[in-house]
Amino acid sequence: MTEQKPLRLGIAGLGTVGVGVLEILTDKAGLLTDRSGRAVEMVAVSARDKTRDRGVDLAPYDWCDDPVDLARHDRVDAIIELIGGSEGAALDLAREGLAAGKHFITANKALIAFHGLELAKLAEQNGVDLRFEAAVAGGIPILKALREGLSANAASKIFGILNGTCNFILSKMEAEGRAFDDVLDEAQRLGYAEADPSFDIDGFDTMHKAVILAMLGLGVLPDPRAVKTEGIRSIDTVDIDYARDLGYRIKLLGVAKHSAHGYEFGVYPAMVPHSHALANVMDATNAVLVTGDAVGETVYVGPGAGRLPTASSVVADIVDTLRGLDAAPFGVPADFLKTVEESDPAARLGHYYIRLRVQDEVGVMADVVNLLSQEGVSIDGLLQRGQSQRGGVYVVIVTHESSEACIARVLTGLTKLDPVLESPTMIRIES
Amino acid sequence: MTEQKPLRLGIAGLGTVGVGVLEILTDKAGLLTDRSGRAVEMVAVSARDKTRDRGVDLAPYDWCDDPVDLARHDRVDAIIELIGGSEGAALDLAREGLAAGKHFITANKALIAFHGLELAKLAEQNGVDLRFEAAVAGGIPILKALREGLSANAASKIFGILNGTCNFILSKMEAEGRAFDDVLDEAQRLGYAEADPSFDIDGFDTMHKAVILAMLGLGVLPDPRAVKTEGIRSIDTVDIDYARDLGYRIKLLGVAKHSAHGYEFGVYPAMVPHSHALANVMDATNAVLVTGDAVGETVYVGPGAGRLPTASSVVADIVDTLRGLDAAPFGVPADFLKTVEESDPAARLGHYYIRLRVQDEVGVMADVVNLLSQEGVSIDGLLQRGQSQRGGVYVVIVTHESSEACIARVLTGLTKLDPVLESPTMIRIES
Repeated sequence: MTEQKPLRLGIAGLGTVGVGVLEILTDKAGLLTDRSGRAVEMVAVSARDKTRDRGVDLAPYDWCDDPVDLARHDRVDAIIELIGGSEGAALDLAREGLAAGKHFITANKALIAFHGLELAKLAEQNGVDLRFEAAVAGGIPILKALREGLSANAASKIFGILNGTCNFILSKMEAEGRAFDDVLDEAQRLGYAEADPSFDIDGFDTMHKAVILAMLGLGVLPDPRAVKTEGIRSIDTVDIDYARDLGYRIKLLGVAKHSAHGYEFGVYPAMVPHSHALANVMDATNAVLVTGDAVGETVYVGPGAGRLPTASSVVADIVDTLRGLDAAPFGVPADFLKTVEESDPAARLGHYYIRLRVQDEVGVMADVVNLLSQEGVSIDGLLQRGQSQRGGVYVVIVTHESSEACIARVLTGLTKLDPVLESPTMIRIES
Repeated sequence: MTEQKPLRLGIAGLGTVGVGVLEILTDKAGLLTDRSGRAVEMVAVSARDKTRDRGVDLAPYDWCDDPVDLARHDRVDAIIELIGGSEGAALDLAREGLAAGKHFITANKALIAFHGLELAKLAEQNGVDLRFEAAVAGGIPILKALREGLSANAASKIFGILNGTCNFILSKMEAEGRAFDDVLDEAQRLGYAEADPSFDIDGFDTMHKAVILAMLGLGVLPDPRAVKTEGIRSIDTVDIDYARDLGYRIKLLGVAKHSAHGYEFGVYPAMVPHSHALANVMDATNAVLVTGDAVGETVYVGPGAGRLPTASSVVADIVDTLRGLDAAPFGVPADFLKTVEESDPAARLGHYYIRLRVQDEVGVMADVVNLLSQEGVSIDGLLQRGQSQRGGVYVVIVTHESSEACIARVLTGLTKLDPVLESPTMIRIES
């Protein structure tokens, strides 16, 4: 190994993850140099508040009030971006830093989901690294697995539990039989959910990550603005109970699929059987299941967020740069990423769970069954059980394989039936 | 990306995996070149029988009767070794190939467990790659995860279900309530177990893989000849039933740990709680759990053997070489791997399951409980239930945390008690 100059870093953003990165780089300087053959030198930092006590001594480093100054800093070789957000300072810093010939390492999923293609091209043109392992599934090295470990495979299916907040809420709702709002309140008090939780619980965070997984795993460019994104607000404890009785758990999945029907991208709560690899991933843990044509199914499980798990992935990226490992950021040159037509979501074939609240009267079941039959949807299971606290009784239907278009017509038809007291709840079943 | 000459390969060993590698390289030539920026050219092959029909046309390639000729072949840049065995042709080919400046990629766990250090040094000296992703856990990219994805971590615990045959047998015994010998017979008929199954079921295969995981994950050099290796022959269906009733599953684990007590390496059947990430890994599936000081627990699950899963990892290694990714084979330069004293196995602290077959008479329980008490082993659970078909009744004890030395004394003492009808069964509990 030739003697190399240290890699000089500038970090933008000194929240919990940034401080975690600083700590690992300091505490493990020797180990990291042993592993990579090259040392790291922290040169400059930028954050919003210079005076805040972060428990680390920042005096040795240049302070930049404007993070984008790191792109112009003549002693910085590599920028660690931990600001967040798909636009603004993070994007400016990425563009200017890469154009200035600096490596760019980020934990920013929104930035990569929206601008990954542009940034990968910039990195190629300037002969520098673009890395973002921490952007998806926190500490799990899933992007490296897709880019390198599974490079002999064409992937057909990527399913991810990618948002710890949602998985925590769903796990708690199941374990303690508590309502969504109640658990969300607690998650906010504990700091697991933001004051404005929409980004997590409405699925946008998962969507950004699913887009990145699709880019890396399938070599395609989903349009983040077009990806069907559903969250978990509509999940009721009765659905969680029925799911359990039927042998399923409800998980919020980020999905990227490639099959004979084309490409499918989406974020939605789904029922997975208890025997499924993702069913037992509980609390804030993340997991990604990948089906490759050579390897079959592999699954990657671990902490999806948190100071040190996220810093673990950021520092692994730094070590990759120290080692000079330079696979293309998305596994292929950026120009090879394909813009594809997403297959019609209505064409999705699968099993579906439908829950109705209906008046408890003679003939209702017959009406419901006839309606499904007219739409060509056949029933795998049907149960009527339990009074709703709000009046009426619940009827739960599990369908045989049907297209989502048929199911949509069924839902519309059911809503119109007089004894049906509210819009039906539909949850997709994945196996 | 600069235009590079194709990487010219020679393959030694054309069993199922070798043919799988040839198929992937042929079927996906374009994809692999897209991903790596460099083409592969198959140049030479070597196998035992030139005339056997393998379903692939070998005519375009040079045939070598002696695999070691690949090391001397002037057009071969990289050798793919799929012969197997820690000595003989595989070792000769590795030594001569690396010394001749050829990259060396292998699926051979025994070779790496016994000679990995020497071969890594040879690779360094000659500036070529040594890769062996397929040697551990088949298609799961666990070595890349340890070497690169988790490079920011000091690992403290690596637990693996590393032998598909054993996991298949244990799963079948549990699911169908069948005896070990019976299920082994079936596994042999189905081709999941060898005619001489000792290598798998006595734990040696798992041991080789655990040694490699320890080298990569902990940066140490366990002596494969000294690693405590127990298999699954002694597991009885009654233990599997009791495990289930107690909330555990029995798994054959390869273990590498580093703690304040020192280093611990071993292979043994262990009870893991149903909620444990490894408990639901069934049939021939493999899984590795890694605890890192930054990331916490991550788990990697997938097929541990088979033609295409194994070929998936071999080809991923080829792609890494095509891409010129050159992290050290064991994550650090070979000279940095530490020879460490293994901590005294008797010092292991943990919970233990002990099953006795005793005469059904007054006072036996008191004798048993007194003996444990005398040795300072406290009891977490005790149950007497079920007649043995061979006479007597079963008594099952789960201990609180104890040292293995205490447990050994307890087992010796129990064996000497008159009403104890056979040597007690002990199974470690891991959580």
